[in-house]
Amino acid sequence: MNPWEMSGEIKEQDYPKLIKEFGAKIIDDKLLNELKKFTGELHPFLTTKLFFAHRDLDTVLDDYSKGKEFYLYTGRGPSGKMHLGHLLPFIFTKWLQDKFDVDLLIQMTDDEKYLVRDIPMEEIRKNTHENILDILSLGFKKEKTHVIIDSEQSKILYNNAILFAKRLTASTAKAVFGLKDSDNVGKYFFTSMQAVPAFLLSAIKGRNIRCLIPYGIDQDDHFKLARDILPKLGYYKPSAIISKLMPSLQGSGKMSSSDPNSSIFLDDNEETVRRKINKYAFSGGRDTKEEQRKLGANPDIDFAFNMYRFLEPDQTKVDKVYSEYKSGRMLSGEMKALSADAINAFLSKLRSRRESIKDDVDSYMFDVDRFK
Amino acid sequence: MNPWEMSGEIKEQDYPKLIKEFGAKIIDDKLLNELKKFTGELHPFLTTKLFFAHRDLDTVLDDYSKGKEFYLYTGRGPSGKMHLGHLLPFIFTKWLQDKFDVDLLIQMTDDEKYLVRDIPMEEIRKNTHENILDILSLGFKKEKTHVIIDSEQSKILYNNAILFAKRLTASTAKAVFGLKDSDNVGKYFFTSMQAVPAFLLSAIKGRNIRCLIPYGIDQDDHFKLARDILPKLGYYKPSAIISKLMPSLQGSGKMSSSDPNSSIFLDDNEETVRRKINKYAFSGGRDTKEEQRKLGANPDIDFAFNMYRFLEPDQTKVDKVYSEYKSGRMLSGEMKALSADAINAFLSKLRSRRESIKDDVDSYMFDVDRFK
Repeated sequence: MNPWEMSGEIKEQDYPKLIKEFGAKIIDDKLLNELKKFTGELHPFLTTKLFFAHRDLDTVLDDYSKGKEFYLYTGRGPSGKMHLGHLLPFIFTKWLQDKFDVDLLIQMTDDEKYLVRDIPMEEIRKNTHENILDILSLGFKKEKTHVIIDSEQSKILYNNAILFAKRLTASTAKAVFGLKDSDNVGKYFFTSMQAVPAFLLSAIKGRNIRCLIPYGIDQDDHFKLARDILPKLGYYKPSAIISKLMPSLQGSGKMSSSDPNSSIFLDDNEETVRRKINKYAFSGGRDTKEEQRKLGANPDIDFAFNMYRFLEPDQTKVDKVYSEYKSGRMLSGEMKALSADAINAFLSKLRSRRESIKDDVDSYMFDVDRFK
Repeated sequence: MNPWEMSGEIKEQDYPKLIKEFGAKIIDDKLLNELKKFTGELHPFLTTKLFFAHRDLDTVLDDYSKGKEFYLYTGRGPSGKMHLGHLLPFIFTKWLQDKFDVDLLIQMTDDEKYLVRDIPMEEIRKNTHENILDILSLGFKKEKTHVIIDSEQSKILYNNAILFAKRLTASTAKAVFGLKDSDNVGKYFFTSMQAVPAFLLSAIKGRNIRCLIPYGIDQDDHFKLARDILPKLGYYKPSAIISKLMPSLQGSGKMSSSDPNSSIFLDDNEETVRRKINKYAFSGGRDTKEEQRKLGANPDIDFAFNMYRFLEPDQTKVDKVYSEYKSGRMLSGEMKALSADAINAFLSKLRSRRESIKDDVDSYMFDVDRFK
């Protein structure tokens, strides 16, 4: 498990084992009910257990019920164009922000991408700008959303990162991230930069504020380390809400930016989306029409259905499609058409919002004075 | 040779060997004559061969004679109060700046001190402020002197440091600095922060400008590495003018801040200076008055004489004292009295200049806009 070179597939049955090894907890029904008290409803990412594990989420909710604030932190490494798989965690983060009305830090790790990849800085800068627009197109609250571009905020990040770095040995960095002596010293240091947003608002405001981080399980190493070190700096351990790997078009591994047919990109046009779904989407349906009618599909592993479930705003419709597809009354082709429509509707909405915020991106940028 | 934990003594006869190992060159008479063409005179640090070696100083002078600019870079780790030994290299740097009328970057590595020492950040900040005042009291040109406090300039430093860090492996950092797996990741990264001023003006101005760095031989590892890596970023190798360890009160090792009697601090009063010189100064004189009269002293290894030579502005006087002391006409006690007077005069001048610039320190701070 290396956040920089995660590849291959994690099997569904491996998740509980992983979580047990890592010391996180499964989000159980009791906790879901707790959450529902505040959110009124449960996001499909929760009911489908895509976000399935946590650290201290119960404490965050407990504190919140007593009127104590918390904030959200998530991020993106701007290595290239964004695809749907990249955007899904942000959809969930936006839902959390909307429900709890809290500040959100979004860290764009352009420095990391420079240090670990062979991409020229100019290209990373361009990616960063485009990715920010993609993310903000989801409709985050302007006054509570704070985008940290590492290279823009390196002063406050570095000055806090050295506090963290002083408490992290090279040997721990090696053990946790699989770094070798042949790796560059920037990689060794970087995890300290990535840890900063987890205590930054506490540092700025001069009082301890809980930070809740939604992330994929492949990023767990970074934040587990932060949980070891932050208390030594006088801060809370960061809390986490952890997802499985996002569903992938071809049903195996993460969606990959390098293979254009393995993912649906945010700038794919309607026809391309339809073609990719028809041709590549991993199906939970049966091999023949007859079998499908007789035995029904397994919607839970079906890429087309999952995208439909996450992107279709009307949950009544989703429930109906689920049972139609599962029972065999709906065929894979129909499911795929519905899914492509939902994806295209989502992407089209994204694009028009993107256009409308294009000249207003600066208002979303992190500004330390806003917290003083 | 570890810049963080240099201890003990380097014997005079070891310097040529060290230089040969490190690939630097001795400053020979030919080069001194070249230098003199521009400076008109030679600083005692050069004639006494305290600054005795170099890298590419000939090229810097050659380019300068063709009208090409260069700049100076030096620094200080603000770990505590400054003593005379700390200030000597800055005296020489000021001389270079005066003679060539060039920009000078002075890096205050507060981040490094935090990472490698057990000093609270608050104390480091205080030291930094006091040390800057001490250094500037030497009378550096305001419009051409630019103090970089790492924690203040971490944005521009970090953004350039990652370019350097990408090209420096942990294994090289280990080999060069003796770092271990048990060292913190900040130490691994820091050398990249220290390398930045060696190419910063080139980076800002977008054209290649030579950088000349006066430093003690114990810092050579840092800059040798910079010479390997900077060309990979498209910049000149930094040039160097390298000193032996500064003369120490007790004649062995560096002056140490931890033992108050091993050094003359800038805030020692006249009586303390006199007492330390009389009691602790390593003497090149003979054991008895009779022997001294008969055989004379060795002024070159005599701390009192060396301080006198470096701090007395009138070189005719210095030459006279040298021959008087060497011949035995002058006794150690007289030499020490002269030296204490010269030191006290120097410190007193320093203090009054310190007072006069106290409220003007901001004008000396690095400001990227000054170079655009």
